[in-house]
Amino acid sequence: MYCVILAGGSGTRFWPLSREEYPKQLLKIFGNQTLIQATLSRVSDLIPIDQVYIVTNPQQLEQIRFQMTNDTSKRLNYISEPERKNTAAAIALAAISLRRIDPEGVMIILSADHFIRDEKGFKQILQHAADAAQKGHLVTLGAIPNRPETAYGYIQAGELLPGSQGIRSVERFIEKPEKQVAEKYLLDKSTFWNTGIFIWKVSTILKEIERFMPELSEGLQQIEESFDTPSEQETLKRIYATLPAISIDYGVLEKSENLVVIPTDIGWEDVGSWNALDEVIPKDEEGNIVTGNVINVGSRNSTIYAKNRVVAVVGLDNVVVADTDDATLVCSKDHAQDVKKVVELLKLGEGDTHRVHKTVIRAWGSYTVLEEGPGYKIKKIMVHPGAKLSLQMHHKRSEHWVVVEGVATVTCGESVYTIQTNQSTFVPMGVKHRLENATDQPLRLVEVQSGSYLGEDDIVRFQDDYGRVSPE
Amino acid sequence: MYCVILAGGSGTRFWPLSREEYPKQLLKIFGNQTLIQATLSRVSDLIPIDQVYIVTNPQQLEQIRFQMTNDTSKRLNYISEPERKNTAAAIALAAISLRRIDPEGVMIILSADHFIRDEKGFKQILQHAADAAQKGHLVTLGAIPNRPETAYGYIQAGELLPGSQGIRSVERFIEKPEKQVAEKYLLDKSTFWNTGIFIWKVSTILKEIERFMPELSEGLQQIEESFDTPSEQETLKRIYATLPAISIDYGVLEKSENLVVIPTDIGWEDVGSWNALDEVIPKDEEGNIVTGNVINVGSRNSTIYAKNRVVAVVGLDNVVVADTDDATLVCSKDHAQDVKKVVELLKLGEGDTHRVHKTVIRAWGSYTVLEEGPGYKIKKIMVHPGAKLSLQMHHKRSEHWVVVEGVATVTCGESVYTIQTNQSTFVPMGVKHRLENATDQPLRLVEVQSGSYLGEDDIVRFQDDYGRVSPE
Repeated sequence: MYCVILAGGSGTRFWPLSREEYPKQLLKIFGNQTLIQATLSRVSDLIPIDQVYIVTNPQQLEQIRFQMTNDTSKRLNYISEPERKNTAAAIALAAISLRRIDPEGVMIILSADHFIRDEKGFKQILQHAADAAQKGHLVTLGAIPNRPETAYGYIQAGELLPGSQGIRSVERFIEKPEKQVAEKYLLDKSTFWNTGIFIWKVSTILKEIERFMPELSEGLQQIEESFDTPSEQETLKRIYATLPAISIDYGVLEKSENLVVIPTDIGWEDVGSWNALDEVIPKDEEGNIVTGNVINVGSRNSTIYAKNRVVAVVGLDNVVVADTDDATLVCSKDHAQDVKKVVELLKLGEGDTHRVHKTVIRAWGSYTVLEEGPGYKIKKIMVHPGAKLSLQMHHKRSEHWVVVEGVATVTCGESVYTIQTNQSTFVPMGVKHRLENATDQPLRLVEVQSGSYLGEDDIVRFQDDYGRVSPE
Repeated sequence: MYCVILAGGSGTRFWPLSREEYPKQLLKIFGNQTLIQATLSRVSDLIPIDQVYIVTNPQQLEQIRFQMTNDTSKRLNYISEPERKNTAAAIALAAISLRRIDPEGVMIILSADHFIRDEKGFKQILQHAADAAQKGHLVTLGAIPNRPETAYGYIQAGELLPGSQGIRSVERFIEKPEKQVAEKYLLDKSTFWNTGIFIWKVSTILKEIERFMPELSEGLQQIEESFDTPSEQETLKRIYATLPAISIDYGVLEKSENLVVIPTDIGWEDVGSWNALDEVIPKDEEGNIVTGNVINVGSRNSTIYAKNRVVAVVGLDNVVVADTDDATLVCSKDHAQDVKKVVELLKLGEGDTHRVHKTVIRAWGSYTVLEEGPGYKIKKIMVHPGAKLSLQMHHKRSEHWVVVEGVATVTCGESVYTIQTNQSTFVPMGVKHRLENATDQPLRLVEVQSGSYLGEDDIVRFQDDYGRVSPE
């Protein structure tokens, strides 16, 4: 058995906590684990870690790696999509990767950002589903509804397969319904939430893709032929751009005669918007979910997410407030689906609050712009133990570095030297330089840039551990 | 004629825009002027600037000075209350100061943070009131209500004074009424909003204080006797602490037989809470008042105040959102009076968001803590042209300074030198130092502190232009 975790979220629905380069799966929305960490934990005693494949994109890959333990990260398999397509292409890419290893293997497809309350029940149902998959079925899990949810798609089940212990044929897929319709489904006992959790053999899904999505299948073949050749990356990038961006449900499952559904009651939730937290997080006596530095005077039924900044809420009812270092959302719970419109509007503007947090994660660590003004920029920089930034040069700015924690190894022109906590150095304009943390402790420093132009793109890279070219 | 402007607000009702050391009068709530600047402008062609007295406290004095032009600030008179008492003591203190100059002068008492739409009408009514005051009346202005406001106190007027052009006796003062009662007042044509604008002769009010508040009167006498003696400051501080903290309305006016009211229709508003802005600021088509970097998706009848951080509001109705660098308020308009409860709760906590903004104003300029961490603190510092910080020393921290704009004159140990934009210097622990801006342009620099203890109270002051001792 193999597990394929789809981890390519777009980061719009939990903005401002989520961002394009930091989507929901990377957040600790409940408990001590991020959603992707929890997803991995959930299957860890069912599937060896080196049989787990994470499908993601280059922007998110580094942060996912960072969230795994060293051992896990080394054994995990990563499949990097050159660009975000929908689930059909992502699953197909995973399937051709697995075909090389085990064409008759069973793949379990999970989203990195779902919630499942009953982990034991989940594992049992996956075992049951894998048995059905071995027989050549495309298996999907259907969650038994406990409320007339309008934010989920539904699957209408048909007859029980004889001797199958609860496995049913699939009549049809149903788009997100109106409230009244959802209330009907809640009662009829044969319509289930579409969980997007799929179980099938590699060979089965590839055959169905060949049948129902021939253009995807042809693209896959070209990509597969380039595997282990020098043109592998280039081919993947070129072909992937041409693949259809549709869901596996729409592209294959709705058309297949092979599909079955297993109804389950494992406390599955998609947690697709801020108000969906109400279903998965316990509330206080006034119906509030409160995190962080919050002062509440008489608010009810509200979700208040803060960190260090003070957030005071007075007399609110049915409102979500989510505060981050550079952006705050205040949203009526009845309009939580419209948060994505905020992100669309932000994309049209000049800022990048839709894309990254104030603290920007990089492979070597992170940086935070603390303040900008005419001719200067103040950054806090953190470099992971053993990591180094690229050997670089700026045409239009000089930089002061003051170490506040750890030891920095500095290359500046022809010199290489170390500076410690409470020491500083100066990198003149036009001089090749490099910042490195050669210790096993984090390095933190303040960078004060001065110059006529301070854009991130004034950078000439000469050597980089992360393969970046210049400008990034 | 003299003008006394009461400028000692407590900064609670417009939190987080207002703070204890930065109350409402210092804010630009509407238009290009702060409320205290607008208050001063309004009387400037009626009363010479050197006959204007601002009663405030030491915390706010520097910022009020900073908001005045140099010329205005030099000619204005400041009366600094050693601590915040209510209006009776503040007005009495102003009255004894004026008695020395012009005991039969007329004093106009204004609040620094009111709104008045009809400035011409206001000046005319003040002239009219001053004539009545000359005859020995205590005159107050009563605003003709245009709505059943429950946030204001009322004055019930009695009979017209014969030949007085609209001046009426006062029957009684009325506390903030319930809605139903306020609706009755709106119709009865003889009940007016209590504006807190008073006009009377210095001798008249002091006589009434002597009669109705003998303990205040005795205290005043001791303070007055110490004027121009070496113990003036000490006496003021000691006696002021013992004075009753009650309003002039309650202490004198309600008891005086001498009080008259002039009903006016000059568009007066107290603007006593966030939702009161609705009365004075024009709204957009959806009924919103919006300032700053705001993304609005479908919100109505709401007031959204932002600056540089992104504030996104989705589907709100009747809500106030006020965002600042270190604190955000989200408040139902129906509960705007409860904002003061937030400030009370903040006072009980460890932070100082009730007291100061993230950027803390000082006589010499301002500072902003950009970031704090274990063993370090990063500050941005701005020094006004010609200003200097105290000659000081720290026991437990060293400081790096990087100039990002202007030229700093640095005293460090026995050396005095200048550093310019893009230069830095280091002040070791335990070394006497001073930072000065000897130019006529602003100086901005980044300070990175390192040390085992970084509290503001680790400071030994040797010499200070602003008379501060150590620790502040």
